[in-house]
Amino acid sequence: MSSSFGKIFRLTTWGESHGPALGVVIDGCPAGIPLTVEEIQFQLDRRRTGQSKVTTPRGEKDAAEILSGVFEGVTTGAPISIITYNKDADSSKYENLRNVFRPGHADYTYWAKYGHRDHRGGGRSSARETWGRVAAGAVARKILGHYGCEVFGFVREIGGIAMETFDRDQIEQNIVRCPDPVAAEKMINAILQAKEEHDSLGGIIEIHAVNPPVGLGEPTFDKLDGLIGQAMLSIPAVKAVEIGEGFAVTRSRGSQTNDTFQVVDGHVRTRTNNAGGTLGGISTGEEIIVRIAVKPTSSVAQIQQTVTTDLEPTEIIVEGRHDPSVAPRAVPVAEAMLANLLADLVLRNRAARIEF
Amino acid sequence: MSSSFGKIFRLTTWGESHGPALGVVIDGCPAGIPLTVEEIQFQLDRRRTGQSKVTTPRGEKDAAEILSGVFEGVTTGAPISIITYNKDADSSKYENLRNVFRPGHADYTYWAKYGHRDHRGGGRSSARETWGRVAAGAVARKILGHYGCEVFGFVREIGGIAMETFDRDQIEQNIVRCPDPVAAEKMINAILQAKEEHDSLGGIIEIHAVNPPVGLGEPTFDKLDGLIGQAMLSIPAVKAVEIGEGFAVTRSRGSQTNDTFQVVDGHVRTRTNNAGGTLGGISTGEEIIVRIAVKPTSSVAQIQQTVTTDLEPTEIIVEGRHDPSVAPRAVPVAEAMLANLLADLVLRNRAARIEF
Amino acid sequence: MSSSFGKIFRLTTWGESHGPALGVVIDGCPAGIPLTVEEIQFQLDRRRTGQSKVTTPRGEKDAAEILSGVFEGVTTGAPISIITYNKDADSSKYENLRNVFRPGHADYTYWAKYGHRDHRGGGRSSARETWGRVAAGAVARKILGHYGCEVFGFVREIGGIAMETFDRDQIEQNIVRCPDPVAAEKMINAILQAKEEHDSLGGIIEIHAVNPPVGLGEPTFDKLDGLIGQAMLSIPAVKAVEIGEGFAVTRSRGSQTNDTFQVVDGHVRTRTNNAGGTLGGISTGEEIIVRIAVKPTSSVAQIQQTVTTDLEPTEIIVEGRHDPSVAPRAVPVAEAMLANLLADLVLRNRAARIEF
Amino acid sequence: MSSSFGKIFRLTTWGESHGPALGVVIDGCPAGIPLTVEEIQFQLDRRRTGQSKVTTPRGEKDAAEILSGVFEGVTTGAPISIITYNKDADSSKYENLRNVFRPGHADYTYWAKYGHRDHRGGGRSSARETWGRVAAGAVARKILGHYGCEVFGFVREIGGIAMETFDRDQIEQNIVRCPDPVAAEKMINAILQAKEEHDSLGGIIEIHAVNPPVGLGEPTFDKLDGLIGQAMLSIPAVKAVEIGEGFAVTRSRGSQTNDTFQVVDGHVRTRTNNAGGTLGGISTGEEIIVRIAVKPTSSVAQIQQTVTTDLEPTEIIVEGRHDPSVAPRAVPVAEAMLANLLADLVLRNRAARIEF
Repeated sequence: MSSSFGKIFRLTTWGESHGPALGVVIDGCPAGIPLTVEEIQFQLDRRRTGQSKVTTPRGEKDAAEILSGVFEGVTTGAPISIITYNKDADSSKYENLRNVFRPGHADYTYWAKYGHRDHRGGGRSSARETWGRVAAGAVARKILGHYGCEVFGFVREIGGIAMETFDRDQIEQNIVRCPDPVAAEKMINAILQAKEEHDSLGGIIEIHAVNPPVGLGEPTFDKLDGLIGQAMLSIPAVKAVEIGEGFAVTRSRGSQTNDTFQVVDGHVRTRTNNAGGTLGGISTGEEIIVRIAVKPTSSVAQIQQTVTTDLEPTEIIVEGRHDPSVAPRAVPVAEAMLANLLADLVLRNRAARIEF
Repeated sequence: MSSSFGKIFRLTTWGESHGPALGVVIDGCPAGIPLTVEEIQFQLDRRRTGQSKVTTPRGEKDAAEILSGVFEGVTTGAPISIITYNKDADSSKYENLRNVFRPGHADYTYWAKYGHRDHRGGGRSSARETWGRVAAGAVARKILGHYGCEVFGFVREIGGIAMETFDRDQIEQNIVRCPDPVAAEKMINAILQAKEEHDSLGGIIEIHAVNPPVGLGEPTFDKLDGLIGQAMLSIPAVKAVEIGEGFAVTRSRGSQTNDTFQVVDGHVRTRTNNAGGTLGGISTGEEIIVRIAVKPTSSVAQIQQTVTTDLEPTEIIVEGRHDPSVAPRAVPVAEAMLANLLADLVLRNRAARIEF
Repeated sequence: MSSSFGKIFRLTTWGESHGPALGVVIDGCPAGIPLTVEEIQFQLDRRRTGQSKVTTPRGEKDAAEILSGVFEGVTTGAPISIITYNKDADSSKYENLRNVFRPGHADYTYWAKYGHRDHRGGGRSSARETWGRVAAGAVARKILGHYGCEVFGFVREIGGIAMETFDRDQIEQNIVRCPDPVAAEKMINAILQAKEEHDSLGGIIEIHAVNPPVGLGEPTFDKLDGLIGQAMLSIPAVKAVEIGEGFAVTRSRGSQTNDTFQVVDGHVRTRTNNAGGTLGGISTGEEIIVRIAVKPTSSVAQIQQTVTTDLEPTEIIVEGRHDPSVAPRAVPVAEAMLANLLADLVLRNRAARIEF
Repeated sequence: MSSSFGKIFRLTTWGESHGPALGVVIDGCPAGIPLTVEEIQFQLDRRRTGQSKVTTPRGEKDAAEILSGVFEGVTTGAPISIITYNKDADSSKYENLRNVFRPGHADYTYWAKYGHRDHRGGGRSSARETWGRVAAGAVARKILGHYGCEVFGFVREIGGIAMETFDRDQIEQNIVRCPDPVAAEKMINAILQAKEEHDSLGGIIEIHAVNPPVGLGEPTFDKLDGLIGQAMLSIPAVKAVEIGEGFAVTRSRGSQTNDTFQVVDGHVRTRTNNAGGTLGGISTGEEIIVRIAVKPTSSVAQIQQTVTTDLEPTEIIVEGRHDPSVAPRAVPVAEAMLANLLADLVLRNRAARIEF
């Protein structure tokens, strides 16, 4: 199981949904970065359960403790271990799932691969694992911030309801993180309606890195695009990713989609940004723009056909506490993954050349 | 620069478009696999330039030589080095590009990152680099084939013209690799038209892995989905990737998109395959289905605004020999990358558990 | 900072000597291994401080908690997080070391490399870090044990006093872990004498892997010998490593040192084992034999010349609680590192070949 | 098989002793380094066979060609592929070895691990593989040289005959690379005598890195010491490694072996260098000093007992062309490995800290 991400700024998450604790170890974080637990907690709170009527009511405080790697408020270069203890796990709803595979979940594939699994709350395959990604992302954001780069994200669409206006200041003003307050209201209603119908909705999230350094990404296999693909599709429930124009570019022509170059304030800039901030797998310095598709939550309290670990057919109704749409809470996770990736690439880029 | 892909079955490509040679080294290929140079050449020929009127006329034979790792027709476990010498590079068309950044190409980003670059034919950023990926993919296919798994791909759409019927046998019968011969004809015409207009077209490719082993993919960061994302978005000109329903899943509901389980011939199978063959980042055994967006070729023989390495504005017309749409030739590349990835995951999966 | 070891069975340690806690995350441990915290604690107790009059009196219980990756007593394939909280750190003795470099310690090099460091008790460079290695080693031993392989070690020499007889049963019967009880007595006296003289002693440790699987080690750079070298020289205070005859082989001849082959019980065996269990970097199945040199503890309560972080000359007497010879407690650490390495190689070896 | 070394400056060697060619790919070499094929060839010639009466007469020119990654005499950041074609392989002497395991060689272990092997001239396990290490080392030396660091090595001892004087200028003046010309003469005679007796000799090599940057090495598992251990013990025939005082330190005391600090010309320096240039796994800036034990060549033309691949006992006389002592030719290989390692660590060190 590869629970690590990044080559230099390398995070390793651990922990199960209903285990005693969850955590992340960041190895390779440079020394010298001022870091407080509050900065980490701020991001974790954006991802926290129970924050609104459209999220699961599981009542975790998700309080982070830094156990190593930070001394007198500054990183030391040693691995940073961050931990939180699970306080509100309720395994009772899962006992009947011990030997049954929930459709849309990883139950069957974990069973097939590992033979033995913690079935409580999805165990390791639970999205609770993303706690550590967000904690690490808060550290990564400090690195990026040092270079003037900032990552933010928002919900474009939920259940087919798309945003029509963009006001960045609106994003964190509504519980679905949509920059269009009118669409937000509709999305909230659609989610509540789906919840009432024991069903769930998917959505589209967009993540931006503003003012990224030029030169991030390693050509060939570790292209910025490729690593964005891995980072995003490693988030639970994400099934598609596009950069810049994405699929729409296939209906364009080379003469239209090419972003032409100009010089602005002594810097090479493109007039448009159809490419979403990358050329040849390397950042151009233009805004990095990524969109991802989040599938509807697999846990639905309806009768579904399935089979048991003894390969007997059965029916199941998945109870427990779930987000009727995970898109709003996936925003800080996707932001964190982009930040974790870019921080790693900033450090990798330091070895790109030598001035002889 | 990370020119390596895979953790156990690990390939490293090298070579520039107009350098003396191109190659790939596969380290970690298991011993015991029967392998001929013809099997490799067969796949390389599918990717070769000059194969039809819709591809670039550059006349490379792309003949592969195996220099190591195979003894008496069988792999030895030692690194497999495969090489081809460039025979038909024509650098004359590129001399005027030495100090100018072509829009849509990696010229500017390589210059910004490395300071020094081989500008001839795109140098390292040329899609000629994918020669090695396809050569390695032929070896990976042998591993997959041993387990009954096969990878194939096709063009779904070019320049907005979409396939409407699917006949797998038709794919290699037309020069755009479209399973719908009627649509294929339209696509060919559209490409030729674009070429005449000194322009280029993008397209959508779909890749399938048929009968994949269950259990491939490493949860958390090396999810099958995540690594497919990296593999696909590391291919030149690819800007988006989706698995299974992809973006369309966002307009579905959990109760609709969940693939319910049943038992067929003693195996757990899903009734539908909206997930595209993965759950929780692990293969279910159902067909793995991936779609990618290929942007229109950046090289267009029209006047484009750009700047020089001295940051002076200038205009450019990109001449040289190019594919007016790279989608048809990208099919064997995308197939190869999926094969390379799955072969690696098959080997990684061997360490998933111990029977005590 | 690379705090990770192993390619498949991959451990990451974290924590500082005087931080709140220490831990290790094992990623890539196969599912299906029965594992109890007692098995881990048993090994940790062998490494624990305060276990005898020749070790530091720091009174840590070193109690391990398993926070993830084990469900109902069996590993799940998910990362295994093991933690202990520091209880008896006394930082008061270190305040005067904040700005002074202790000779023989990592103070200067950490300062030069990172600029910012936790000086208390050596911070990250403390041998307390090895707690996590031993915890992971207990898991690795379970894997090896499943294949009938066992690792053990002992002290050959301390302060120039060498063992003269070998009785494996004696090793854990004395506080210096020497298989020769007479030499053990002398070693203990020498250590106590050195301690009284405010000085310290080094020693030689030997580690064996009994009945290892054939075929471990990856030729070329990840030779079994090479990885043993890394594993051993990554242990604090170790300055040399030899395998089999080691340096003595340089005074032998090919005709003498070659281990000739024979067949015993249907297995290829060597008549002698001068090579220490490896040929061409791969295990032969004979006992793997490794010796390491442990330098005298750098902390000595004598006046030593040194400089401050302001580059001013000064004198220092290093107080605090230290082992007058670390060799006895380094035995379980070296055993653990060999076990961690071999467990990783057992898993890597699974991808060595395919039976067509 | 792991044929790669290094994390950022990463080399991958390929090729067999009697295959068509040998090569190395260096991925991650920074752009901007002036590099000529002559600089590479200079080092390769020091390693070449047939250079004197104490080396094997196999007559390879070992001529290097650079196939990628260098443009107009400067590295581009793209992978550097360097190749040589085998010209003088004579497989006839090996036909009788196809089914027999030579004592002291990797024949048995490769057979046991891989099932299928190229037996000609040792195949992949031949020391011919080190060609690529030396080629890469020439590039690594350019990086180190840019920072004022230089690597050199010499033979300390052969067949028990030790050097007694040290004159660096003498090293390359004699065919055994010994800095003591009197001892060199004795060593040469001992080698020729052993050769006449169809036997072989081992030796001790010492490698220095002069004026290394401070701060190289990554604490915990990638300590400078640990990686030196891996680098050296990955060289064929090497069975032991020590750093600084090495094994001798075990007979010293802390008060004696600690290198005390002083300030010289504004730099922190140690008065002595018993540690061999490392503290806590990080370079101090003092000379890095490494010694390795090279076993006597396993190929001896005497009757040796062995077994066949059918597990039948047999006898063998190993003919073919061999170095009666590999120590002299192992000097440039060991130098190259130290250079390759240090170049990688120089690049890794760039990510150690951020100045906020």
